[in-house]
Amino acid sequence: MNNNQLKIGIIGFGTVGQSLYEVLQKSPSTKAAIHTVVAKNPNKQRSIVPENLKFNASEIINSNEIDTVVELIDDDKEALKLVKTALYNGKNVVSGNKKMIAENLEEIIRMQQDTGQSILYDASACGSIPVIRNLEEYYDNDLLQNITGILNGSSNYILTQMYAHHKTYEDALAEAQENGFAESNPTFDVDGYDAMYKLIILTLHGFGTIVKPENVFYTGISGISGNDISFAREKGLKIKLIAHACKVPGNKVALFVMPAFVEPENYLYNVDDEFNGVIIEGEAYDKQLMFGKGAGGHPTGSAVLSDISALSHQYKYEYKKLHLPNPPEVSEDVMLKMYFRYQKPETIDILPLQTIEEQHIGPQYHYTVGTVKLADLLINSDNLRKFVSFMALRRISNESIFTHYQNKNYYRQSLAPVNAHLIL
Amino acid sequence: MNNNQLKIGIIGFGTVGQSLYEVLQKSPSTKAAIHTVVAKNPNKQRSIVPENLKFNASEIINSNEIDTVVELIDDDKEALKLVKTALYNGKNVVSGNKKMIAENLEEIIRMQQDTGQSILYDASACGSIPVIRNLEEYYDNDLLQNITGILNGSSNYILTQMYAHHKTYEDALAEAQENGFAESNPTFDVDGYDAMYKLIILTLHGFGTIVKPENVFYTGISGISGNDISFAREKGLKIKLIAHACKVPGNKVALFVMPAFVEPENYLYNVDDEFNGVIIEGEAYDKQLMFGKGAGGHPTGSAVLSDISALSHQYKYEYKKLHLPNPPEVSEDVMLKMYFRYQKPETIDILPLQTIEEQHIGPQYHYTVGTVKLADLLINSDNLRKFVSFMALRRISNESIFTHYQNKNYYRQSLAPVNAHLIL
Repeated sequence: MNNNQLKIGIIGFGTVGQSLYEVLQKSPSTKAAIHTVVAKNPNKQRSIVPENLKFNASEIINSNEIDTVVELIDDDKEALKLVKTALYNGKNVVSGNKKMIAENLEEIIRMQQDTGQSILYDASACGSIPVIRNLEEYYDNDLLQNITGILNGSSNYILTQMYAHHKTYEDALAEAQENGFAESNPTFDVDGYDAMYKLIILTLHGFGTIVKPENVFYTGISGISGNDISFAREKGLKIKLIAHACKVPGNKVALFVMPAFVEPENYLYNVDDEFNGVIIEGEAYDKQLMFGKGAGGHPTGSAVLSDISALSHQYKYEYKKLHLPNPPEVSEDVMLKMYFRYQKPETIDILPLQTIEEQHIGPQYHYTVGTVKLADLLINSDNLRKFVSFMALRRISNESIFTHYQNKNYYRQSLAPVNAHLIL
Repeated sequence: MNNNQLKIGIIGFGTVGQSLYEVLQKSPSTKAAIHTVVAKNPNKQRSIVPENLKFNASEIINSNEIDTVVELIDDDKEALKLVKTALYNGKNVVSGNKKMIAENLEEIIRMQQDTGQSILYDASACGSIPVIRNLEEYYDNDLLQNITGILNGSSNYILTQMYAHHKTYEDALAEAQENGFAESNPTFDVDGYDAMYKLIILTLHGFGTIVKPENVFYTGISGISGNDISFAREKGLKIKLIAHACKVPGNKVALFVMPAFVEPENYLYNVDDEFNGVIIEGEAYDKQLMFGKGAGGHPTGSAVLSDISALSHQYKYEYKKLHLPNPPEVSEDVMLKMYFRYQKPETIDILPLQTIEEQHIGPQYHYTVGTVKLADLLINSDNLRKFVSFMALRRISNESIFTHYQNKNYYRQSLAPVNAHLIL
C-alpha cells in the first residue's frame, strides 16, 4: 500500500456504502484504499461482501491504521458521536448525513477548529452535483444573491409522475420507493425536512449564515391532490418543491422550503423525475444552473469519492463567508404570494393573510391566493400544517421571489377585507 | 491597505477589464485592490476611468508593488510574453486568453513549476461557469467519460436567431456583434477556433491530455444556410456548435468541434441564445449539466473575480490528471455519422466517406449523410473547408457520439457503393 494512500473505514454499508465500494474500484488513481467496512446487520445478504467486514463502528473510529472515516448511517445522533470520536482521534471524515450536519453546524465547525481535522460533506446536498464545494470556493465573493433549488429527488419524482402521467400521490410515492429514490423514512423526503436540512447547509456555505432548523419555514408535498395539479396545469405551470435562500436588504438572508408554481421560463421547470437542479444567481453573472442526479447510490457514492479525493489533497472547508466581518442575519420580514387549499371554508380565518388576491369556494375544496409574511408562516406553522391541505408559493419567476414588505404599503392594513371576502 | 490584500494590475481595459473593475467594487470582501490599470489607447473614451490608468504594461509586470497581474488583452503572442515576465517577476496571473493558453499549455505548466507562481484561467472557458475548476477539483477521479459543451456564446446566439426567428446568418451575426457577444474577430467565434481552444483547455483538466490545436478537427457555422436549418427543423432537431472530448477504449481520448444536429432529449437542446452549457458525463454520476452565461463582460469579469479570490487563498491548478502515471493519448480512430452539404455534385468524391446512408441531389444544393473516420476529417480538413458548404454531426444523442470503428466492420469496404450512389 502506497504511503500517500488514504486508509478508509466505511461505517454503514447500505445503498450508498456499497456504491462507494464499487465506485472506488472504478477509480484506481484515487489515492485511497478501503481498510474496513462496518455494517449494521451481520445476517443481511449483500451483493458485495468486502474482505474486511466488521459489525462494530469502534473497529474504525478507534483503529490506529485508518485515517479517513466515511460515515453513511441513517441515525443522526449516533452519526454525530461517531464523527466526534473520529475527529478527536485524528481522523478526517466524509459524511452524507444532512440532518446531522444541518442540526449541528456550530459543533461541526468547532470540532474541526479544535482538532485541525477536516470533515467534508458534499454528498449531503444534491448527491453528485458539486454545489457545496462551488459555493465555498467559486462563489466566495459578495455577488451571490439567491440559491434556488430542487434538492429532493424523491419529491420531484412524485411530482413529475403526478403531472406528466396523471398518477395519484400514493401511486407515485410507492413507485419512488420501489425505484430506491426515497429515503428510508418517506416523511423525510415528502414533508420537506430533507430539502430544509440541505438548504441550511447551502446557506452556510453560500452566505455565511448559520440557521437553526426551527427557524426555517418548510412544508412539503404530502397533502397534494389532483386539484392542485389541475390548478397548475390550467395555468401552464408545474409544481416543484423548492428550497430558496435569498439576500434581502439590510444584510439579511431569508430562506424557506415549500412547493411552488413554476413557470416554463424558470430553469427549474424542466428539472423533472429524480433529478436535482440548483440555480445560483448573482450580480454580474446572472443565473447559473447546476443539474444532475441528486439521489441514488451511485451518484451519491461518486460525490463521496470526490470528497475522499479532496481529503487526499488536504482540502478543508474554510467557511469563508462565515468568517467575513459581517455575515448576514436571518430575516423573516419578507412577503410571499401563496396558494392555500383547505377542506373547511372557515380555515381562511387562521391563514395569516395580508391581502387576498383570489378565492375559490367549491363543492369539493376551497383555495385562497394571497400575500403572507414569512414570519407569520413560521409562527403559525403548526396550525397551517393541521388545517391546510396543501400550500405553495403562487409565483416563482425569474424575478425575485420576494416582495420586500418594507417597501410596500402592506403592514396588515388589508386584513379587514379578508373577512369581507370570506363572506362572499 | 490590508497586508493580506492582493495588489492587482489589470492589463487590457476593454469590456472584460472594465467589468472586472465594476465587479470588484461590488465585492468588498474580496481581498484584492486594483493598483494600476493599463489600457491600450490613451485617447479612447471610457465609461470608467480608474485613478491609476497607465498605457504601458511594463508599469504592471515590472512593478514592485503589484503581486497579481490580470491579463485581458487580445493579442495572444503579446499576452504570453507579459505572462512570462510577470510569473518570473514573482507575480501570480489571471488570464482569460484561451488562445494563448491552449497553444502554450506545456509552457504555461512549466513556467508555473519553474517559478512556483500560479496562473489561473477559469474565465478562459465558459465565462462565469466554473468548468475548469470543477474538472480539476471535483471530477478528479477516473469516472469522467465525456465532456460535451456549447462553449461559444456568439455562435449559439446566431444559431438560435436563425432557428427560432428565421433570420439569415448575416443578420444574426450582425445582431450578435451589436449585442457584444462576438469576439473582436468574428471568425474566431463562428469558425470554431474559440470553442476549439476552450476544448483543449477542458481536455487537459478533465483527462490530463495535452493536445495541440493542429491535432483537433474543428469546423464552424459560417457556411450555414436556411437549408440546413430546414433539414434540422423537419426532423425536430436543432443545430448547435458542439465541442466534445470523450474517452475511447485503449486509454485514449478523442475530441472535435463541429456543428451537430441535437435531439430534444439532449440537455444542450434548450441551451439557446448566448448561453453556454457543458455536460459532464461519468460512470456512476451519469450526466450533469452546468449552464449559464458564457460570454459578455460582466459574466467573464465575475469569473476573473473568482480566480483572483482563489489566488488570495494560494490556489494553484495542480493538473492532477496530467500527473497521473498514464494519462490518455489522443486518438482519431473513431467513426462519426456526418452530414455534408455542398454546391457541386462531384464534391462527394472528396468526402472521406466510409458508408453512405442518405443522399440528396437537388436543384439548389446536395447533401450526403454517411460515416467518416475522425482521422480522415482531420487529414482532409483543408479540402473539406474549401468544397463543403456546411458539415455537421448527424447524430448526437444521450448515448455516446462515437462508434468505435475497430468494433465494426467498417474499414472502407463500403467505399464502392459511394460512387454507385452518386450516379443515381
